[in-house]
Amino acid sequence: MSDLKLVSKQYEGHKSEISIGQETIGGTELCLIAGPCAVESEEQLFAIAKGVSDLGIKYMRGGAYKPRTSPYAFQGLGKQGLQLLKKASELYNLKIVTEVMDTSLIEEVYDYADILQVGSRNAKNYTFLKELGKIDKPILLKRGMSSTINEWLLAAEYIMLGGNENVILCERGIRTFDTSVRNTMDLAAIPLVKELSHLPVIADPSQGTGKRSLVIPMSLAAIAAGADGVMLEVHNDPEEALSDGFQSLYLDSMAELITSLKRQAQASGRTFNLKSLVKETV
Amino acid sequence: MSDLKLVSKQYEGHKSEISIGQETIGGTELCLIAGPCAVESEEQLFAIAKGVSDLGIKYMRGGAYKPRTSPYAFQGLGKQGLQLLKKASELYNLKIVTEVMDTSLIEEVYDYADILQVGSRNAKNYTFLKELGKIDKPILLKRGMSSTINEWLLAAEYIMLGGNENVILCERGIRTFDTSVRNTMDLAAIPLVKELSHLPVIADPSQGTGKRSLVIPMSLAAIAAGADGVMLEVHNDPEEALSDGFQSLYLDSMAELITSLKRQAQASGRTFNLKSLVKETV
Amino acid sequence: MSDLKLVSKQYEGHKSEISIGQETIGGTELCLIAGPCAVESEEQLFAIAKGVSDLGIKYMRGGAYKPRTSPYAFQGLGKQGLQLLKKASELYNLKIVTEVMDTSLIEEVYDYADILQVGSRNAKNYTFLKELGKIDKPILLKRGMSSTINEWLLAAEYIMLGGNENVILCERGIRTFDTSVRNTMDLAAIPLVKELSHLPVIADPSQGTGKRSLVIPMSLAAIAAGADGVMLEVHNDPEEALSDGFQSLYLDSMAELITSLKRQAQASGRTFNLKSLVKETV
Amino acid sequence: MSDLKLVSKQYEGHKSEISIGQETIGGTELCLIAGPCAVESEEQLFAIAKGVSDLGIKYMRGGAYKPRTSPYAFQGLGKQGLQLLKKASELYNLKIVTEVMDTSLIEEVYDYADILQVGSRNAKNYTFLKELGKIDKPILLKRGMSSTINEWLLAAEYIMLGGNENVILCERGIRTFDTSVRNTMDLAAIPLVKELSHLPVIADPSQGTGKRSLVIPMSLAAIAAGADGVMLEVHNDPEEALSDGFQSLYLDSMAELITSLKRQAQASGRTFNLKSLVKETV
Repeated sequence: MSDLKLVSKQYEGHKSEISIGQETIGGTELCLIAGPCAVESEEQLFAIAKGVSDLGIKYMRGGAYKPRTSPYAFQGLGKQGLQLLKKASELYNLKIVTEVMDTSLIEEVYDYADILQVGSRNAKNYTFLKELGKIDKPILLKRGMSSTINEWLLAAEYIMLGGNENVILCERGIRTFDTSVRNTMDLAAIPLVKELSHLPVIADPSQGTGKRSLVIPMSLAAIAAGADGVMLEVHNDPEEALSDGFQSLYLDSMAELITSLKRQAQASGRTFNLKSLVKETV
Repeated sequence: MSDLKLVSKQYEGHKSEISIGQETIGGTELCLIAGPCAVESEEQLFAIAKGVSDLGIKYMRGGAYKPRTSPYAFQGLGKQGLQLLKKASELYNLKIVTEVMDTSLIEEVYDYADILQVGSRNAKNYTFLKELGKIDKPILLKRGMSSTINEWLLAAEYIMLGGNENVILCERGIRTFDTSVRNTMDLAAIPLVKELSHLPVIADPSQGTGKRSLVIPMSLAAIAAGADGVMLEVHNDPEEALSDGFQSLYLDSMAELITSLKRQAQASGRTFNLKSLVKETV
Repeated sequence: MSDLKLVSKQYEGHKSEISIGQETIGGTELCLIAGPCAVESEEQLFAIAKGVSDLGIKYMRGGAYKPRTSPYAFQGLGKQGLQLLKKASELYNLKIVTEVMDTSLIEEVYDYADILQVGSRNAKNYTFLKELGKIDKPILLKRGMSSTINEWLLAAEYIMLGGNENVILCERGIRTFDTSVRNTMDLAAIPLVKELSHLPVIADPSQGTGKRSLVIPMSLAAIAAGADGVMLEVHNDPEEALSDGFQSLYLDSMAELITSLKRQAQASGRTFNLKSLVKETV
Repeated sequence: MSDLKLVSKQYEGHKSEISIGQETIGGTELCLIAGPCAVESEEQLFAIAKGVSDLGIKYMRGGAYKPRTSPYAFQGLGKQGLQLLKKASELYNLKIVTEVMDTSLIEEVYDYADILQVGSRNAKNYTFLKELGKIDKPILLKRGMSSTINEWLLAAEYIMLGGNENVILCERGIRTFDTSVRNTMDLAAIPLVKELSHLPVIADPSQGTGKRSLVIPMSLAAIAAGADGVMLEVHNDPEEALSDGFQSLYLDSMAELITSLKRQAQASGRTFNLKSLVKETV
């Protein structure tokens, strides 16, 4: 792995913390990013934003441009979706994480996002990664569904080499023979990446499993394995979601998740200080 | 999954606990099985057995018959290895978990083992599984390296249909494109199996990762995901081990593991009451 | 691959031909093995045996013991199936290829088979492979569904080291993420194995694809890639087959296959001299 | 697969032939595309172009923009590479196939290429695919290394839905557990795609195997399976190639390949009428 220079521990000699305004990802405090798979409407987004914000969560995810396997599936609201995300972020004091799908969209997404997400399907789009190296906002780099650890880290190297050192890695499952779940979450990748790199690593158990009932246990397992946080899908009405409703948590389940994450943080020597209204049972 | 009858939740309606003497696997208490990959000599085995026993561990693993990819690799001590395991178990008050590789060896291994392990390579050897259904000792059934969840559970169904309902499932990693680690541990399989079956499930992070430094984080992650325990490889002298030394913990690391497992047990609503001499730092 | 000794080119320095009575596999002449997935009844088997024999085919496959994923699926007729195979072989002058699933069955199957088949699920059952090294009939060794080339060849090494050098390798597809077909046939394995070993290699496009319409093109492709023959499933009434009917050819399609194989043999510098009654359309 | 509309057989009811000047791909005549992995220099490219042209080959491949796993590896000559391709094409009367890696490069590559190649890493870059739907030159769409058949065909659907119906599919191997070869060529995908779609399908055995000695047998096997042609890497000096030399054929081997392809074409009911100076041995 000799081409791992900027991403490697040797280069930095420490654990990087990425700043997003006054928040940081990669320190002792765990991060939690929650929101819908796709922005569908103002009503939907604001209901979720309010729910998320009430729980004390600081980051909301939501897709405006959606990479869909079929051209006939809902492709996202595009620029209108970005505008809704911006409005929601201002109203509910949330940092926005949203996917940028193509070089031609970087400029537009840059204006609305706090963290720009690179999806699994773009994980080896090197021209695109080079362009992301030229901007000054953090990049959430998902692992490609068929990327080895080395390939994933080299994708980060592409971004960092361009000058943008604010890369957050995200394990989201790989493609294997077993179709019992949508992807196979490779949690061992988390401590392995921690050995090789100073970059923060989070996990996405919604994409990683594709099954609502597995999201909470796999969130906890990711933290136990050493992840710096989790990103997951939540919806005010999963049954009616335009995409991926089956893997979205109900807003009501978020309180249970947060209580469990607090316990897990303690066991793992981390902190998780959400200032929420959730009644805690610890 | 309509052929999941005896293994399914519907049949039992509860969580099964498997009894091994006065111990049980599958209840609130987590189980820890530790020992060498292979029995190499009396000196090696007894040193490990003493170390394991001093820590309060109740189950020792150790291979007498070893399934090795090459016919020129160390194949295990065979019957002599079983005899050493028996002696060690008596001397150090340990339950023995050891692999049975073939129908022709069931009778012999039965006499020496408390739990008979079915390895990944035999996970679809149905004649063999049927024979194991006829005995009255617990079976530790590893997942095949290319078995789907359904295939793994149906292998348990084969054993149970023969009359032996004492099956403990063990996730040990699956084979995927990524060779950064030896196998890809599929921790999501643990909560998924818990939804589908009443059988206990443990994890083997030594085989599952093939890398010593990943064994502790992945043990904790497995428990966070809902596993009933872990099985792992420990050696008094990993550098000189005849097989798999690179993935074996040093005896010294076991205390660290146990301290972490106690914390994790608490976070996961489980107990882990080893009566050991280990100084705890909780 | 330093443990490849008996299977390697270096050892033999030539291409091995395996004798089965007066026939050979591995020479210039291509071999064709056809028959049902499972022996179901005398009526079924004899109808297929007659059809196969009329076409000039010399080898019939047919399972008496069947490795089925579910214990509730048809498990084969067992010894009765072997007896029917024997009767059919005598009546229609066919060599019999049938699977042996376990050490405990070797002696029985030996009495009825001309070639003993080791299935994909037993490809790493090393105790069993060692036992097969002690007999004097040819072994058709299928590749494990998750075996690397090296692991497959080492399985052959296990058999040969025991003294039985009559091993025929069979590529039958590996397990991958793509479920469009039952398995992914790895035809590149054929020329690669030919570089590494002197053993004959055939292909099984029925198991390899699990789809009737792909069997003929993949048979031709296997020969073009260098295979010494093909083994496939044919049934007198695929719609009513007790197992794998969807991947079995109709008897009527066999004539088309044979005509195409003759053309392909010529293009590939091989011979295929079936003395059949089939009207050829070349 | 209900979202396969424009790519499906039902829509067209026939086999599409894609025109490139006076040539066509997808008819009875097989196509052969050969050239270096990357354009390295005028000297290298022209030597290869002359060799390829002398053999009567009509299409030359060559990368100007190269998607490399490491940012420190040779990234291609970029625009200069495109200019050299153009010069070579004029001098030696060759159609040029070259990769376009990003939306931002479509316009530039359009000016120099006869066929624009979409690489495996961009196979799910949907914004990009939509843009390619707006141009009027043929697209060679490689299968993603982890794309199912359905995902691959839906990628073509994205392009066609934009208005560009000139799509040539290219099987180039998928990523599996077996690392004996670079990728696992999925030749069964070829007849399967032919059942589902009217589009031409070719194979790339250089990328597909990553091993020079396998390129010729796998080219023949692809044609036997029903492919409309092959694309492969050839180099005047493979040992010194800046990328992928190990999988490039020597120019000298091309004559052998062509002779074999002519035989194979005949066996497969195809034609292959290169007007070359190659001495034939048929």
